[in-house]
Amino acid sequence: MNSFGRVFRISILGESHGVGVGVLIDGCPAGLPLSVEDFTADMARRQGGGRAGTTPRKEADLPSFQSGVFENYTTGAPLLIWFENSNTQSKDYESLKNKPRPGHADLTGRLKFGGFNDYRGGGHFSGRLTAGLVAAGVIAKKLMPELRIQARVSEVNGSTDVDAEISKALAAGDSVGGAVECTVDNVPPGLGEPFFDSLESLLAHAVFAIPATKAIEFGSGFLCTKMLGSEFNDDIESADGRTTTNHSGGINGGLSNGNQLLFRIATKPTSSIKKEKKTVDLVTGERATLSVEGRHDACIALRVPPVLEAVTAVVLCDCMMMEQKIPRIFSRK
Amino acid sequence: MNSFGRVFRISILGESHGVGVGVLIDGCPAGLPLSVEDFTADMARRQGGGRAGTTPRKEADLPSFQSGVFENYTTGAPLLIWFENSNTQSKDYESLKNKPRPGHADLTGRLKFGGFNDYRGGGHFSGRLTAGLVAAGVIAKKLMPELRIQARVSEVNGSTDVDAEISKALAAGDSVGGAVECTVDNVPPGLGEPFFDSLESLLAHAVFAIPATKAIEFGSGFLCTKMLGSEFNDDIESADGRTTTNHSGGINGGLSNGNQLLFRIATKPTSSIKKEKKTVDLVTGERATLSVEGRHDACIALRVPPVLEAVTAVVLCDCMMMEQKIPRIFSRK
Amino acid sequence: MNSFGRVFRISILGESHGVGVGVLIDGCPAGLPLSVEDFTADMARRQGGGRAGTTPRKEADLPSFQSGVFENYTTGAPLLIWFENSNTQSKDYESLKNKPRPGHADLTGRLKFGGFNDYRGGGHFSGRLTAGLVAAGVIAKKLMPELRIQARVSEVNGSTDVDAEISKALAAGDSVGGAVECTVDNVPPGLGEPFFDSLESLLAHAVFAIPATKAIEFGSGFLCTKMLGSEFNDDIESADGRTTTNHSGGINGGLSNGNQLLFRIATKPTSSIKKEKKTVDLVTGERATLSVEGRHDACIALRVPPVLEAVTAVVLCDCMMMEQKIPRIFSRK
Amino acid sequence: MNSFGRVFRISILGESHGVGVGVLIDGCPAGLPLSVEDFTADMARRQGGGRAGTTPRKEADLPSFQSGVFENYTTGAPLLIWFENSNTQSKDYESLKNKPRPGHADLTGRLKFGGFNDYRGGGHFSGRLTAGLVAAGVIAKKLMPELRIQARVSEVNGSTDVDAEISKALAAGDSVGGAVECTVDNVPPGLGEPFFDSLESLLAHAVFAIPATKAIEFGSGFLCTKMLGSEFNDDIESADGRTTTNHSGGINGGLSNGNQLLFRIATKPTSSIKKEKKTVDLVTGERATLSVEGRHDACIALRVPPVLEAVTAVVLCDCMMMEQKIPRIFSRK
Repeated sequence: MNSFGRVFRISILGESHGVGVGVLIDGCPAGLPLSVEDFTADMARRQGGGRAGTTPRKEADLPSFQSGVFENYTTGAPLLIWFENSNTQSKDYESLKNKPRPGHADLTGRLKFGGFNDYRGGGHFSGRLTAGLVAAGVIAKKLMPELRIQARVSEVNGSTDVDAEISKALAAGDSVGGAVECTVDNVPPGLGEPFFDSLESLLAHAVFAIPATKAIEFGSGFLCTKMLGSEFNDDIESADGRTTTNHSGGINGGLSNGNQLLFRIATKPTSSIKKEKKTVDLVTGERATLSVEGRHDACIALRVPPVLEAVTAVVLCDCMMMEQKIPRIFSRK
Repeated sequence: MNSFGRVFRISILGESHGVGVGVLIDGCPAGLPLSVEDFTADMARRQGGGRAGTTPRKEADLPSFQSGVFENYTTGAPLLIWFENSNTQSKDYESLKNKPRPGHADLTGRLKFGGFNDYRGGGHFSGRLTAGLVAAGVIAKKLMPELRIQARVSEVNGSTDVDAEISKALAAGDSVGGAVECTVDNVPPGLGEPFFDSLESLLAHAVFAIPATKAIEFGSGFLCTKMLGSEFNDDIESADGRTTTNHSGGINGGLSNGNQLLFRIATKPTSSIKKEKKTVDLVTGERATLSVEGRHDACIALRVPPVLEAVTAVVLCDCMMMEQKIPRIFSRK
Repeated sequence: MNSFGRVFRISILGESHGVGVGVLIDGCPAGLPLSVEDFTADMARRQGGGRAGTTPRKEADLPSFQSGVFENYTTGAPLLIWFENSNTQSKDYESLKNKPRPGHADLTGRLKFGGFNDYRGGGHFSGRLTAGLVAAGVIAKKLMPELRIQARVSEVNGSTDVDAEISKALAAGDSVGGAVECTVDNVPPGLGEPFFDSLESLLAHAVFAIPATKAIEFGSGFLCTKMLGSEFNDDIESADGRTTTNHSGGINGGLSNGNQLLFRIATKPTSSIKKEKKTVDLVTGERATLSVEGRHDACIALRVPPVLEAVTAVVLCDCMMMEQKIPRIFSRK
Repeated sequence: MNSFGRVFRISILGESHGVGVGVLIDGCPAGLPLSVEDFTADMARRQGGGRAGTTPRKEADLPSFQSGVFENYTTGAPLLIWFENSNTQSKDYESLKNKPRPGHADLTGRLKFGGFNDYRGGGHFSGRLTAGLVAAGVIAKKLMPELRIQARVSEVNGSTDVDAEISKALAAGDSVGGAVECTVDNVPPGLGEPFFDSLESLLAHAVFAIPATKAIEFGSGFLCTKMLGSEFNDDIESADGRTTTNHSGGINGGLSNGNQLLFRIATKPTSSIKKEKKTVDLVTGERATLSVEGRHDACIALRVPPVLEAVTAVVLCDCMMMEQKIPRIFSRK
């Protein structure tokens, strides 16, 4: 439900406008050195770095280690990383309470939880929850320093001229979708488990937990539907699995093949826009229109790269531990 | 690993050229009437129905209830459905043992399991394992008769003229990829769980367990990367969640929204082709070429629809039970 | 690992002398009214109520709802209940760092986690962690108001004159073990799942997570080894499962039978005693003696009843939800 | 539910008078040599070896490897071990269908599963299901050849003169309970996980899945309730955890401490006895008497030792794999 992983297991908690958000990590090896500074870079990337098109809301987003860290090392006990909320403006959302945003969890969350859900700023469905994901990713990355995980926005509104597309959307009081690509180098072969824990299954599972994700493709992905077997299937060059091309995205039969891991996801346009959309008034039951004022992301894809890297790291860390490639105790050097 | 689901839980087992293949279902409600005939239609669809481009290998594929069924009703105990293998021609594969097929699990499976894996016909990685998936799907569908789950091949080699494309591939000793689309009607709102068990996460997890799957997109999917928020986000028509368009594919915030569930997957071209590919000889370590003779599918996508329906049914059944929309005991009528 | 339960799932975290301790609950139905006052009684009972033989350490132990509660109702999102530590005297323990207490996790925890574990006051192994258990129990009890769960110390040092036995132990600078009995009335029949989730399996699993527990018996328990079948097996009185005697403790075949649930556990004597024990000095490797000064419980069994009720409630709540006897949304009355 | 374990995971299936019984093992390392002969000794012990007081029902009980074994080695894929039923006399049970046996799952199973359960011979609740447990134990033992796991009946009807007590019960048309003790030598320290997967929790969970188990105690167990801390808590002799006494049964703080693992369980007297018991007639709802003719065990405890060893081995194997003390691939020697 709100947990993911088998032996490196993370649980996400918190709400956008509640006390805070965080992540609980169970199964983290003991002995990993950990400091607040380890989180600075990825947490800042997640905030969009002040780039146009990202919301001006700024949390300090300093991680607080509530458990599982002692004298700057992980202890092996559950590790709770917590980010207190500050700078929340709940009244922005009060007016929206009964007018669900098209494309958002406002209405589905309400239907599922009988109206008891915290609706403020999306509550538990908010993009703010990704702070916990990024934090878990920082730790997973530190446990596998040899892996090189890199994600970047590859396209916005079908163009690689990302900033131009976002400016247009902003000017129109609109938002815009984007594609984010992720690569991982130095992945050992054999990660993933048949039959249900294929590496694609695990990555896709985690990736669709990132709010606004609507698609994922590995390697050449959907292009494979237009290819012949002689083209698509990558010729094998050596007994350790190296291939001449990488249409498979580094995965065969659900297992990593030792080549670069490569996949791409689709991030839908933000729901909160100034441009008028049609919805219903849940009090009267009548149709209504909605125009969302206030601070919002014009292109949520801009914030996705560190989050995508994080869930990728979490999945790979769990697989590496299953394969006994990360020890349960790190040695103090 | 080889199990999937939370309260309706399936485990896949078996090998292509071993004793048989099957599925073990735990958590199936008691009291569901079950007969061999319930499986006939979907098992036949899975075999491709003799359509050109599907392998001529024909198993009777009659399900055998090894446990969990008594006097033609499910008992609530674990239900093992078994398909004995017959008509296996292992010597076809003996020659391929040391020449891994490009694009297949041959090499990754060998690397992961140290060469102990059953390599015959792909062993545990074979498409034959989907017989168990289809069987589980038959049961899941019977538990939710009000849902209408339908999958179909929508495109092969980029064309809707499916048979023509397959004929061309066959003539060239090649294989070809395809896209398969799935829709589900009458899904209640609120299925799926934040944060990690979003409906997209669960469906994608299960879908990538289907061999040869390389991509999945929900609703408008990758198109959303080229859309504005005002276009993509579906206007809401009524308080129960009905929308005017369905770009989201029936899911918002990871929860079903009551509209039609809609997604599309990419199935890569088969690995076993006559056309020569490059590989390595694992005995000598030298480069080698490979041309696979014998019976194989030219377009594995043709066999995917019942399998895709099955995993979709399994996921939805698990979600429906989590929401207490399927009782633990069916009443004998 | 640090989580327990299938659909009502709790995770325990924190350390005795760290920031705090707590419990994360996933799968809690939405709509349960919740206030700090709900916790007062059981949290106070857990502290021993000032009874002789319980440590004078007093935390305010006011639960803080960090997530999952909104406007005094549960939201259906993960619920973190947190107890901040105060009044910790870490220097009490500094001297013990290298002299593991006989009977405690000091040495095993150190061996398992390579010395990275927080050793202060037992760290993650401390009895203080039971605060989180009690908190989870309060919620589970509120979800099943019709059940009556009651635990009490039935014997200390083999005597029912509990206070006298504890006084003697205190006077001797020693500690003493005890037995705690638990009964539950109004349990519906059919809770528990074959084959591994028998009600006894689930209860025992949870009960042995309570520090200092060394044994559990259901109904007549070990006495059954001295009984004949004609005596032990309870005659059935009615078709709904009522029996004339209750040697089975309300469970047959791993399933509740509708009679009173009855079991008894053994709580070992506390490790921290003034009386001298033999241990090793982990720095020198030499044998050493240990006499623990400071505040400790002479009879930890005194604090166990509310904890035992709590884990019992948690197990039953999970089973009740599996049986769909607790809805996913409580209706606001 | 019917599965147990985290990375070495077993699932139990089958019914006493159905097609057969078996166990599915997921996560078994590849490369373990396996033959039918490996199972002979423990399967024969489970049958009681013709000892007076064990049922004369004799199945050949030859394991059949349905999947996961190739050329006499485990492959790493799910391993189904199956025991076909033969020699079943279902009509013995037909007459009992509506007269539930006191102390048995007959009535609770019927209530839970709405009467759809296979009632013949106890169905899925039968002691016959332990064949699968024993089979899983054989594999777990082979994965940890350095461990020495031994269980034995220590007492029947309160006496160590086991055969005499059973003869008396047999003569009286009655059954009798017994105690079974288990020891494990060469357990490395640090097995088990805080907070919920304490070694006691895992062992107890698995042990209570053995039909007829009503109690478990570790080390001195219930005696600890009558002991002082200075007596009970074992003095530590060396830095690797060796203690002078073993009241704790080799477990401190839920983790193995490197000493002998020691625990004892209580097995209740069999339900099926000739001596008359009171029950209800489920058709008429009237009270009735029941006298069970036919082959049954007078003392089921006699069959428990190999089963107890098996579940102990399964738990330890899972813990050893969590600690990376068993590799995922065994090397062919």
